[in-house]
Amino acid sequence: MVKNDQTAQNLRSAYAGESMAYQRYIAWGEKAKEEGFENVALLFKAIANAEQVHAGNHFRAHENKDGGFLVAGGGEFGYGSTSENLVGAIAGEEGEIEQMYPAYSLVAKEQGESDAVRSFHYSLEAEQIHAKLYREAKEHVDKGEDIELEYVSICQVCGHTVVDGVPEKCPVCGEPSSKFRKFTK
Amino acid sequence: MVKNDQTAQNLRSAYAGESMAYQRYIAWGEKAKEEGFENVALLFKAIANAEQVHAGNHFRAHENKDGGFLVAGGGEFGYGSTSENLVGAIAGEEGEIEQMYPAYSLVAKEQGESDAVRSFHYSLEAEQIHAKLYREAKEHVDKGEDIELEYVSICQVCGHTVVDGVPEKCPVCGEPSSKFRKFTK
Ligand SMILES: [Fe+2]
Ligand SMILES: [Fe+2]
Ligand SMILES: [Fe+2]
Ligand SMILES: [Fe+2]
Ligand SMILES: [Fe+2]
Ligand SMILES: [Fe+2]
Repeated sequence: MVKNDQTAQNLRSAYAGESMAYQRYIAWGEKAKEEGFENVALLFKAIANAEQVHAGNHFRAHENKDGGFLVAGGGEFGYGSTSENLVGAIAGEEGEIEQMYPAYSLVAKEQGESDAVRSFHYSLEAEQIHAKLYREAKEHVDKGEDIELEYVSICQVCGHTVVDGVPEKCPVCGEPSSKFRKFTK
Repeated sequence: MVKNDQTAQNLRSAYAGESMAYQRYIAWGEKAKEEGFENVALLFKAIANAEQVHAGNHFRAHENKDGGFLVAGGGEFGYGSTSENLVGAIAGEEGEIEQMYPAYSLVAKEQGESDAVRSFHYSLEAEQIHAKLYREAKEHVDKGEDIELEYVSICQVCGHTVVDGVPEKCPVCGEPSSKFRKFTK
C-alpha cells in the first residue's frame, strides 16, 4: 500500500515503464527469432517476464488507490534489426538504473513507503543484470553470432535474472529456488 | 510506419495504455483465481492477450521512429476484490471506446496514416466486446457466481475476442481460423 501522492505517482510511472518494457521485449524477441538469433530471442522472452514481475509488484504496491490516471512513463521505440533493438533495450535499462529507480527510491525512503522501497529495489537490482546481458548480446549479434545459453531463470517474486542456473536462495529477495521460473528453448 | 508526429504520439499513448491493460488484467486474473472465479480468471487472461496483440500492432506501426520517449497513457489502478477490479476493467474499456480510439482514429484518417488507422480500428472493435464481457462478468460476480464459459479465442492479428467458438474467418481482420489462439482452463 502507498500513502503519499508523490510515491504513488512514481509507482504508476514505473508501472507504465515496466509494462511497456514487457511488450517491446516480446516484440523484439519475435524479431530476434525471425533473424535466427534463437538464444537472444529466449533472453528477450525471459527478461520480459522479469519486467512483468516488476510491473505486478508496482501495481500491487498501489493497490489501495483505485481509479483512472493519466500516467507518464518512459519507453523505447523502434522495430528494426536485432542489433538496433538491443541499442533500445540497453538505453531503456540504463535509464532505469541511472535515473529513474535511484530517484524513486530516494523519495520512497524519505516518505517511509516500505512497499514502494522494496518494489523499486527489486527492480533496480534486476535491471543491472539485464543491461549487462543485453550489452553482451549486442557484442555477439554485431559479429553475426548468437549468444550461448541453455536457459534463463527468473525469480517470480523480485525478477532476479540468472543465465544457466537456479540459485538455492534468491540473492535479492531471499526466496527459495522454487520461486524461480525457468525459460528454455 | 508512421509519418506525422501527432499520430506517432497517439500510437505511443495507445501502446502505453494497452501495455498497462495487459499487466492489470494478468494481475486481476490471478486475483479472480484466488477468489475462486476460475472462468473470470480465464476471461482476464485471454483478454490480456488481446491487449498484447493491440500493443504489438501499435508498436510495429511506430517501427520507423526509434528512440526513447516520455509517454502519457491512461491506466486503471487498484487491486481489490474481483467485483471492484471489474469496475476498473469496464471503465478502462469504456474510456478507450468512447474517447481514445475514436479521437486517434479521426486524426489518423485525416493524416492518411494507414497503418495507424488499421491498428486503432482493430483495437476499437475488440474493446467493445471486452466491455460487454466484463459487464456480464460483473453481474455474475456480484451475485457470488462465476461466469459460464469453456474457452476464449483471440485473433493474433487483431485481438478479436470470441467466447466458446472460433470463427472460420475473423470478422474484423479477415484472417482464417488458424490465426486464433485458444485459452482454456
Ligand atoms: Fe524492470
Ligand atoms: Fe530490465
Ligand atoms: Fe527474488
Ligand atoms: Fe486493447
Ligand atoms: Fe480491451
Ligand atoms: Fe482478426
